[in-house]
Amino acid sequence: MIFLKKIILFLSIFPLALCQENLDPDVFPRPLIIEINEAHLKEWPAEEVLLQCTSWRLAGEANNLNPWKTIPEECADYVKEYMTGKGYALDLQRVSNEAGLYARSVDLSGDGKIAWVFDVDDTLLSNLPYYAEHGYGLEIYDRMKFGEWVERGMAPAIQASLKLYGEVLSLGFKVILLTGRSEMHRNITVKNLVQAGFREWDKLILRSFEDQGKTATRYKSEKRNKITEEGYQILGNSGDQWSDLLGSSMSVRSFKLPNPMYYIP
Amino acid sequence: MIFLKKIILFLSIFPLALCQENLDPDVFPRPLIIEINEAHLKEWPAEEVLLQCTSWRLAGEANNLNPWKTIPEECADYVKEYMTGKGYALDLQRVSNEAGLYARSVDLSGDGKIAWVFDVDDTLLSNLPYYAEHGYGLEIYDRMKFGEWVERGMAPAIQASLKLYGEVLSLGFKVILLTGRSEMHRNITVKNLVQAGFREWDKLILRSFEDQGKTATRYKSEKRNKITEEGYQILGNSGDQWSDLLGSSMSVRSFKLPNPMYYIP
Repeated sequence: MIFLKKIILFLSIFPLALCQENLDPDVFPRPLIIEINEAHLKEWPAEEVLLQCTSWRLAGEANNLNPWKTIPEECADYVKEYMTGKGYALDLQRVSNEAGLYARSVDLSGDGKIAWVFDVDDTLLSNLPYYAEHGYGLEIYDRMKFGEWVERGMAPAIQASLKLYGEVLSLGFKVILLTGRSEMHRNITVKNLVQAGFREWDKLILRSFEDQGKTATRYKSEKRNKITEEGYQILGNSGDQWSDLLGSSMSVRSFKLPNPMYYIP
Repeated sequence: MIFLKKIILFLSIFPLALCQENLDPDVFPRPLIIEINEAHLKEWPAEEVLLQCTSWRLAGEANNLNPWKTIPEECADYVKEYMTGKGYALDLQRVSNEAGLYARSVDLSGDGKIAWVFDVDDTLLSNLPYYAEHGYGLEIYDRMKFGEWVERGMAPAIQASLKLYGEVLSLGFKVILLTGRSEMHRNITVKNLVQAGFREWDKLILRSFEDQGKTATRYKSEKRNKITEEGYQILGNSGDQWSDLLGSSMSVRSFKLPNPMYYIP
């Protein structure tokens, strides 16, 4: 009965996490609004948490979830453990390895402008230190505080991505960075990227004033259209959000880095 | 040291699973060629199997893996347990729920031909009884035997998909079935679908003689192009392979059903 109750509770929570309304056009990772009910969490057996939350995380990574604002309450500890444990690191490494294998299979002998597009936040640079100080997304998103974090320019490289980045460059791909960060953060973003080891790129595209208010999918699609019109062929794209990868002028291959903490449409 | 050895072994196995060669244009699920080394499997702690194989499965569902012919040997038991345990059923149910939520959010009040495309094998009809008799994909693929299974017309409905199917129909979507099965299986496919509860559709598209030899991605893209030219708007698409979902004339929303057993390009 307790099991059944939990299943019903779990299923009933999902609709609450859905959101059809227009989201704040803010380009930064969106917050998790989660209240932990300790007594409640203890009721759910660890095995059930693992099963349900792995299924939820898988659905997110396969882009099956409808737009969501928060992770399910029951998965709060699970997500924290995943992000700080072996799971996240292993998944990052696997995506990097698979992308590298693909990159090496591409014929770059012509004189075409063969491009690889990278997202920045939680693709090249890790915001995990920020989330560590803010409950790994459990706190309500604070645009000011996150902006301050960005302006500190202290985000470390995601090591698996740094490795791929080096490989892709050495193979002869043109690297294009396409980020939802605002133009007002250009200087610190350049400084942070360089300090983290990302030292060479063809273009760094940030969100300008006229791109505010667009979904990330639309903004990034428009930029990819422009990149393609300029004669680039986009053969690889890495991002931690499906909005980095889907839309128009899609890359021949896309690589979805894991991120169960937030969803950007 | 044993842990490190296992990691190295695991990473060294992946390149072997990659396949750049032209695959048999056979439209049926491709085989798993796996030899079980019992002694070897016992060396890997259960926790490590769970971590590594969950990561591998996640990468597949997120379409991060390069073309693969076989599942990693170490994950043979894991995949069997997933397919026959709670995991697969739960994941199927979640995809169906999310797709249903999306379907209900679509405005169908106009007189347009709003379509939902469904794949058949392991999307509407389950081939799990076949795999149960053949080691859940551990045996080498036998085209003749699988063809005989299809001709028996005994594949049961995937219950979560049957529920979605009914919802989508009752909402007013035009349902289009787009399968990699050959035209020679049309009669039995119709009979099997009807007996399993799928009793109404606008079109059932099977692979004709001139479509043999094309990848599923190309074949299905061409068919979606045609569907679109005929005036349909494809707003939903359900499939257990990324080749059901990617390419041209992509659906507005795509739903990837879980399937860690085989990969069709």
